Amino acid sequence: MTEQVVAVLGRGVVPRDTALLLADDLGFTRGDGCFDAARVVVRDGTPRVDHLDRHLARFARSAAALELPAPDQDSWRALINEALAAWTGTGEAVLKLVLTRGPEHSTSGTTALLTITAAADATSARQGVRGATLSRGYASDAFRDAPWLLGGVKSLSYAINVAAKREAVRRGVDEIVFTSSDGYLLEGPTTGLLVAADDQLWTTPLAGTGVLESVTIGVILDAARAEGVPTQEALFRADDLPGTDGAWLVSAIRGVLPLVELDGVRLPHNPQLSAHIAATAGFR
Amino acid sequence: MTEQVVAVLGRGVVPRDTALLLADDLGFTRGDGCFDAARVVVRDGTPRVDHLDRHLARFARSAAALELPAPDQDSWRALINEALAAWTGTGEAVLKLVLTRGPEHSTSGTTALLTITAAADATSARQGVRGATLSRGYASDAFRDAPWLLGGVKSLSYAINVAAKREAVRRGVDEIVFTSSDGYLLEGPTTGLLVAADDQLWTTPLAGTGVLESVTIGVILDAARAEGVPTQEALFRADDLPGTDGAWLVSAIRGVLPLVELDGVRLPHNPQLSAHIAATAGFR
Repeated sequence: MTEQVVAVLGRGVVPRDTALLLADDLGFTRGDGCFDAARVVVRDGTPRVDHLDRHLARFARSAAALELPAPDQDSWRALINEALAAWTGTGEAVLKLVLTRGPEHSTSGTTALLTITAAADATSARQGVRGATLSRGYASDAFRDAPWLLGGVKSLSYAINVAAKREAVRRGVDEIVFTSSDGYLLEGPTTGLLVAADDQLWTTPLAGTGVLESVTIGVILDAARAEGVPTQEALFRADDLPGTDGAWLVSAIRGVLPLVELDGVRLPHNPQLSAHIAATAGFR
Repeated sequence: MTEQVVAVLGRGVVPRDTALLLADDLGFTRGDGCFDAARVVVRDGTPRVDHLDRHLARFARSAAALELPAPDQDSWRALINEALAAWTGTGEAVLKLVLTRGPEHSTSGTTALLTITAAADATSARQGVRGATLSRGYASDAFRDAPWLLGGVKSLSYAINVAAKREAVRRGVDEIVFTSSDGYLLEGPTTGLLVAADDQLWTTPLAGTGVLESVTIGVILDAARAEGVPTQEALFRADDLPGTDGAWLVSAIRGVLPLVELDGVRLPHNPQLSAHIAATAGFR
């Protein structure tokens, strides 16, 4: 069985087979809650969370967008530390933080818990992934002035993302890249999109597109600017990618995945550039 | 505390404060599951479920769209009967059936449970509701040939529906009517749309729109046809409604709610027609 630590805010680490949620928890019945996920890596014998400050900040933004109480940073950090201390895995793992509106028919307040789970091996994906585009159904400006559509919110309502991953399997590809109804590449179901072109790094604009801000792309772009490489936001079409220097799907957990093929078209792939970008985000 | 019965498939009725779900249940972490909800009413001293066959059939269609195992009808019916026998409420109640893909990191299979919970009083809403339109962000044909968008699937990923209800409160109205990006009325976050015009009854087409099939509208349209009233599907704009004989937001739980105002515009309302339509679906 996959190794796992489970911990509950206000309660601490619990046995992993502990049932924790009531049948009417709104995170369960409505997907009415948010989460965030970060990579846990063992460095110098100690498990550490990559870019925890940024993940906690995004978690707080998701909670605010859902009008949930702001996560108490000190309590979460203490719980994370307790869970890391209980973590005995040696490979890469996923820290997942979850906050929901809580049980619908009681006054017990929000549900707040975390899990640390051994990560699936991403070695192969880090060498290159083949992708297919799927329409996300929205125009690229659909989320402008429509906060109820929860654009950019890492909510628990991820059924479409999961369905898209099933569609990837059906199409015989590794990854999906969602497109807008007006034909732009947006993001993957659990990845952001990074493009190298014209000696710059590019990612999808957030405003209007509903795209989730990628913590790892943020780290990569900060590192690029520190190296003097300009960074910009732009919407690309699938047809644009063969003329670029490369594209990557970026995940906090799986890392920087070179998109070597999209809808059957080979894309430029520079392994040295990939390795450099991945290293700036802490991936080897 | 709101009266509630909780029951688990394969286990039966459990105390309502029983924690049932693991932290990594995919229904919880991904909204990766489906539900259905029907009204429970006490008739002749016995609690009964309205239109249970239709709700079970829709539940099975939702499960199929999510590629979940087909719900075993006999087991669910037995569990529902056990829960009804334990139900001591005398007013209207909600039966909710939930099926998820189960815990991500164990082999225990799907999670399947139900709740019966006392319903909020819908007396006032049945007299008339004021609505506001909100964009759902999708064009009215966005779901055509895009099954991964889960159009018409009653999934657990309902965070946008919940956010829309918060927006209704903020706008000082009772109900939201979602519109397509091309300006058509679709449905409410938890209601379907019914319109009377030209001596016919109309509802939103399902194909392409992503609209959930309403069990209660299905019952109403069947009754109308039996009375010789033609029924049709059509897309209406908000501007069309003042020229009709009336519009209703229809819920299996709350009933047939006359939409007496939309975006501040008064709409035609014939209380006798409303009462007749409501009665055909079992609402008084």
